[in-house]
Amino acid sequence: MSENGEDDEGPAALGRRPRRYDGGRMLALSDGVFAFAITLLVLDLVTPTAHDRELLSALVGQWPQYLAYVVSFATIGAVWLAHNAVTDHMTHTDSTFMRLNLVLLLLVSFMPFPTKILSMFVGADNPERVAVTLYGITLLVLMGLTLWLWSYARGAGLLEESPGEELVLFGKRFVPGIILYAVLIVVGLFVPLVAAVGYLVIALYFIIPFRLRHAIRHLRGRSRRG
Amino acid sequence: MSENGEDDEGPAALGRRPRRYDGGRMLALSDGVFAFAITLLVLDLVTPTAHDRELLSALVGQWPQYLAYVVSFATIGAVWLAHNAVTDHMTHTDSTFMRLNLVLLLLVSFMPFPTKILSMFVGADNPERVAVTLYGITLLVLMGLTLWLWSYARGAGLLEESPGEELVLFGKRFVPGIILYAVLIVVGLFVPLVAAVGYLVIALYFIIPFRLRHAIRHLRGRSRRG
Amino acid sequence: MSENGEDDEGPAALGRRPRRYDGGRMLALSDGVFAFAITLLVLDLVTPTAHDRELLSALVGQWPQYLAYVVSFATIGAVWLAHNAVTDHMTHTDSTFMRLNLVLLLLVSFMPFPTKILSMFVGADNPERVAVTLYGITLLVLMGLTLWLWSYARGAGLLEESPGEELVLFGKRFVPGIILYAVLIVVGLFVPLVAAVGYLVIALYFIIPFRLRHAIRHLRGRSRRG
Amino acid sequence: MSENGEDDEGPAALGRRPRRYDGGRMLALSDGVFAFAITLLVLDLVTPTAHDRELLSALVGQWPQYLAYVVSFATIGAVWLAHNAVTDHMTHTDSTFMRLNLVLLLLVSFMPFPTKILSMFVGADNPERVAVTLYGITLLVLMGLTLWLWSYARGAGLLEESPGEELVLFGKRFVPGIILYAVLIVVGLFVPLVAAVGYLVIALYFIIPFRLRHAIRHLRGRSRRG
Repeated sequence: MSENGEDDEGPAALGRRPRRYDGGRMLALSDGVFAFAITLLVLDLVTPTAHDRELLSALVGQWPQYLAYVVSFATIGAVWLAHNAVTDHMTHTDSTFMRLNLVLLLLVSFMPFPTKILSMFVGADNPERVAVTLYGITLLVLMGLTLWLWSYARGAGLLEESPGEELVLFGKRFVPGIILYAVLIVVGLFVPLVAAVGYLVIALYFIIPFRLRHAIRHLRGRSRRG
Repeated sequence: MSENGEDDEGPAALGRRPRRYDGGRMLALSDGVFAFAITLLVLDLVTPTAHDRELLSALVGQWPQYLAYVVSFATIGAVWLAHNAVTDHMTHTDSTFMRLNLVLLLLVSFMPFPTKILSMFVGADNPERVAVTLYGITLLVLMGLTLWLWSYARGAGLLEESPGEELVLFGKRFVPGIILYAVLIVVGLFVPLVAAVGYLVIALYFIIPFRLRHAIRHLRGRSRRG
Repeated sequence: MSENGEDDEGPAALGRRPRRYDGGRMLALSDGVFAFAITLLVLDLVTPTAHDRELLSALVGQWPQYLAYVVSFATIGAVWLAHNAVTDHMTHTDSTFMRLNLVLLLLVSFMPFPTKILSMFVGADNPERVAVTLYGITLLVLMGLTLWLWSYARGAGLLEESPGEELVLFGKRFVPGIILYAVLIVVGLFVPLVAAVGYLVIALYFIIPFRLRHAIRHLRGRSRRG
Repeated sequence: MSENGEDDEGPAALGRRPRRYDGGRMLALSDGVFAFAITLLVLDLVTPTAHDRELLSALVGQWPQYLAYVVSFATIGAVWLAHNAVTDHMTHTDSTFMRLNLVLLLLVSFMPFPTKILSMFVGADNPERVAVTLYGITLLVLMGLTLWLWSYARGAGLLEESPGEELVLFGKRFVPGIILYAVLIVVGLFVPLVAAVGYLVIALYFIIPFRLRHAIRHLRGRSRRG
């Protein structure tokens, strides 16, 4: 870009490289962990034993594990979308961001554990309460870390000037979402199932856009091409 | 590239970025999930117990699980090829497409579960019928979602003008494929094994090209170089 | 590159796109499956039960599973290096290559199954013979498919003019390697352990270069920079 | 790009290609293995059995496995950061580096095995000593291989002139870190728990930067933009 070619060999290269290298591998590792954690959830689904003659009712009777599976999938999906919205608008990365990102990945890859415990103990009185609470706290910490990652990126000047609409969307929903998690953790102590359904609703609240501006941009994009 | 640099900072950057960033990470996550789901299938293969003195006959006796393994592998492979054919001709992505894509990935990563159930219950009268039906419905929904993703991309103007031959191939085969799935689900209620073999045939029908134009392009490519 | 910009929108774009898109996702899926299969092998390592007081001798007594683990890791590593050497010198991909590649990935992702069976049945007279034979046949088919993929790429004109030294290396070793596999499968019927060690030797034979030309290029590269 | 087209077909292409191809796939495989190994650790976490009425105390009683989980995660994270710091400053790769890298990946993907054994046998007198020693040796070999990879890259002229601050950081900490591992392995023979906690401290020592220069660069980056 510059005349003296400092972009390739000079100090400016330090600014450009992290974008392609550090950043690239950080995203590769992140996408790997997200993809793997989201796929490992399927191993939490217990198959009926071979002695089960009534397979259909056995499968239907395992509905709590399908609920836990979908909630965890939707939550990891929402965190991935938020993570994406942040890295999408970063000009570069730094070593602190990479370390914070590792902590987020620790939580993401931990998800199959509370999910399995939740799906095992739904219906069992006292353990159910513990399982739902552990699950809720994991979700809360996971979403809190995502918010922290975003705040850090903004504070450290890693983001572009214009944040992009996806990031605006998450920015508006982070705080109410985290308050809702806290409320549902308390609710879960009394009515565990309501909390589990509530966690699904929060995940969908993060995922589903219903945006008007978005539709408009598309129309504009079309007319430009047309 | 352009004189006023709008490629780097102006509105055109919005058009360029989703292609490299959003799109890149969406494909990275997708390929990750496809790769893991397709590899996780191997965990569904039950090894004979160490007490088995007749290992060969024990292994041969487990033929239903190899069939289920190959059918699931071929089906996920076919969905990946179709997914590839769609994203290959997209100029950009949007947030709705990314969300629909997450739902498709949910189904892809779910595949090892009905596969395991099918391979466990083949041969056991009544459960076999339930297992084959569950399996067929999963395949039908999976292929239906792939078709939906493609329709959405076309409707929202995410595709290039010229669809490319791979996409034309899938476009022609989607509807007959889905009808075949529906027919085989009904057949599976009476003759489960026929349905299982049928699902393999559909997967191969999606995968194998038998195309003349393709061969011609190759010859042309060669003569151009020669 | 050309004046009329046909590189971006014209027919030449068809030649350029497969390289970046099809090819890119094919390699992403392949690397995902290779990485995952190679990492899943660790799940084949059975941990001693918690009742074992003599952990050290229990771990040492499980040496066959470490051997099987290392052989499978080295073999998948060798196939990955060969796969890499092929795709490294491809100018583009085609749909037949992508389908052949899926068959290779089927074999790669299947590897943890015969590995587990081998490590379970080493030492048990008759089953050991079956396990080693199954394992050897899997390795033979895997290496045969890699050779086939390479032949196809060459025949279909997907490769560059100059094949590159890595590919020359594999080209020279493929046929002797496959003959060695066939010999060892027969040997394994009588002396299973010799075959298992032999498979490790073949994998290392594919992996280890001992090349002079290579060292020379390095020196040249250094003097060019110096 | 250049007039004589050597960029596309001539010897210079050999210098450019490994960077984009060999290197790209080597990093893709590496990031895949790192991501899967780090995520597979969650499968080492044993869930309490469904008969457990006192889920909370059962979960709390399993603290050794959470410690082992976090230590392994942090160690793989540190190795990934070091690996990243090396590849980040490589101008190209060679076949020896790719093979050494495979050996490193063997160790990375092996990590879930000693982690599981450690978390199973903490608290059981004699086995605990064996488990902690096995674990410590694995960590030592893993970090030693990372150091070897770096030394090779430097010796073979694969690195850029200016090593970059991340690499300087790791360069300074490698030798003390490896000495600490050796000391802790001996300590672990007498006080296993102290060794386990010590391994966590080393991992954090590798991960946490506390760097002043870094903060300064950020400020400079901001003022340049401002």
